[in-house]
Amino acid sequence: MSLNLNNVELRYTHHLGNPELRTQIASFYENFSWENIAVTTGAAESIFSIMASLTNKKDHIIVECPNYPSFWYIPQSLERSMDLFFLDFEENFKPNLEKLEDMIKPNTKLICLTHPNNPTGSVITQGELKEIIDMIEDRDIYLLMDETYRELTFDNPLPAAASLSSNVISVSTMSKVYGLPGIRVGWSASSEKTIIDGILKVREQTTICNSALNEYIALQILQKKDRHLKQINHRIRLNYEILKDWIKSQAYLELVPPKGSVTCFPRFDEPTEKLCRLLVEKYQTFTVPGYCFMMDSFFRLGFGGETEELKNGLEKLALAIEEMK
Amino acid sequence: MSLNLNNVELRYTHHLGNPELRTQIASFYENFSWENIAVTTGAAESIFSIMASLTNKKDHIIVECPNYPSFWYIPQSLERSMDLFFLDFEENFKPNLEKLEDMIKPNTKLICLTHPNNPTGSVITQGELKEIIDMIEDRDIYLLMDETYRELTFDNPLPAAASLSSNVISVSTMSKVYGLPGIRVGWSASSEKTIIDGILKVREQTTICNSALNEYIALQILQKKDRHLKQINHRIRLNYEILKDWIKSQAYLELVPPKGSVTCFPRFDEPTEKLCRLLVEKYQTFTVPGYCFMMDSFFRLGFGGETEELKNGLEKLALAIEEMK
Repeated sequence: MSLNLNNVELRYTHHLGNPELRTQIASFYENFSWENIAVTTGAAESIFSIMASLTNKKDHIIVECPNYPSFWYIPQSLERSMDLFFLDFEENFKPNLEKLEDMIKPNTKLICLTHPNNPTGSVITQGELKEIIDMIEDRDIYLLMDETYRELTFDNPLPAAASLSSNVISVSTMSKVYGLPGIRVGWSASSEKTIIDGILKVREQTTICNSALNEYIALQILQKKDRHLKQINHRIRLNYEILKDWIKSQAYLELVPPKGSVTCFPRFDEPTEKLCRLLVEKYQTFTVPGYCFMMDSFFRLGFGGETEELKNGLEKLALAIEEMK
Repeated sequence: MSLNLNNVELRYTHHLGNPELRTQIASFYENFSWENIAVTTGAAESIFSIMASLTNKKDHIIVECPNYPSFWYIPQSLERSMDLFFLDFEENFKPNLEKLEDMIKPNTKLICLTHPNNPTGSVITQGELKEIIDMIEDRDIYLLMDETYRELTFDNPLPAAASLSSNVISVSTMSKVYGLPGIRVGWSASSEKTIIDGILKVREQTTICNSALNEYIALQILQKKDRHLKQINHRIRLNYEILKDWIKSQAYLELVPPKGSVTCFPRFDEPTEKLCRLLVEKYQTFTVPGYCFMMDSFFRLGFGGETEELKNGLEKLALAIEEMK
């Protein structure tokens, strides 16, 4: 795809994003308009801004784990009280809603879930999502739903969660499914104006606005979203089949098959730090050791790259495992 | 200037900035290498990250005023104790160093100055800067020196302050002198590795990294810095002469002549909110009312734009003043 950037003026942009880009993003949500969207510096700034503006020091946050580690580091930095809601391998990494309900405290203000989950690829059902929404609506709790990989669900994607309740904030990004982390464009979507205003207040003190150039690129890509998604989905499914076949040959690995995303979270029969270090140092092959997700015996295995690169990486991984055994 | 962006990969970049860009920026400081530079999302993110990482809740911050308002909003958000160090019109907006020294408390950790000052255009002398550095070095206090307009000092620019002491952090940006706010590239410079590390820790939780595309553009511009600065300085001096002549004709305005930057801070004989509102609503001419800087009877008047635009704006300003009197 070729873009002409000559007419983009490199001035300050709108602090919540170019209205045309916000309108385009709003069209992914039911009955949303541009005012329901806050464009941010990647999804990262959305997460930070929501946590900083929506919660205060008296509030309690529940964070699904494993997950993108900022989800627990940010509450620590902001001195919020926080508990991790662990997904269990034995439960196929599906969130246990009874356990979640038991974790809710009188001062719980925010629950953070990521589905398709990073790194496990687990996806809750629409019924489970609705059950969670029922759980929070009566209690004045918000759900931050990280939907970064929603468009890469192998079966039917969940509906965009923010469309289902004013207590849900959807967060997404151009960095993963669209493969464009280098443009630093993400967003939050909420039907509540106070949520969008809160994000604005934080941004005014951190980054002010997005890059005019990058907002233009994001708009061009999102206007042709379906074409891009078709190509990407095709490659990811092909890669996943390769991974699925490969894992059968691995005696020391167990896998809950991912239902979406571009990562999975195999279990090894010992802590994975050594394995991951050997892989990167000897084989220049990159995985993420489980201790980064506070689950030592697992590791994150990505399959979103080029197919040849994946095949090559899996070969190296097999060699490293052999070497350790 | 024409740029070919076809070969820029839109991946995640280095979290503290592209090493080549960091090396280029380091060359503006004496004996600095790329490791002394943290590239951030504009200067805004530098200011936020420094305040968040360098100070904790027990620390006291002194902020020069008038100034970019985030300098006092960020400490409020972070719940730091903070005092404003006011520049006085009667002292030609020069910082009164005795007053500054009197404001220092046992728990003062950070002093924030902006020179050339935004909005007054006041510039401290090299002697005064050295006096301030002497004042802080013995006391384990840091100076955050916002040098956004340093290259637009009408006489000789001050040396980059971070070069003078490990207690000084210089902050600057592509947004002002280079006129490229739309690329969101700024930086911090410090000879202390712990300062740069602290900025990294905050960034990991807010924006992760800069845009690959924008870092590339910044590098291309900074590699031809002298050529750009020559052009820009030429226009600003021309604009300033026009402004200086014009202000003589204004009976209701008093001005401390700016010594640098692209803004000045005239005093009106009443609070300026009405004047600024009339200007923007009736004359589509934009100034910033003094209450934004907590100095009601002043307003910020920018002269950095196109010369014809400035002339036109000054005419409108004269009409609005006439209308109020």
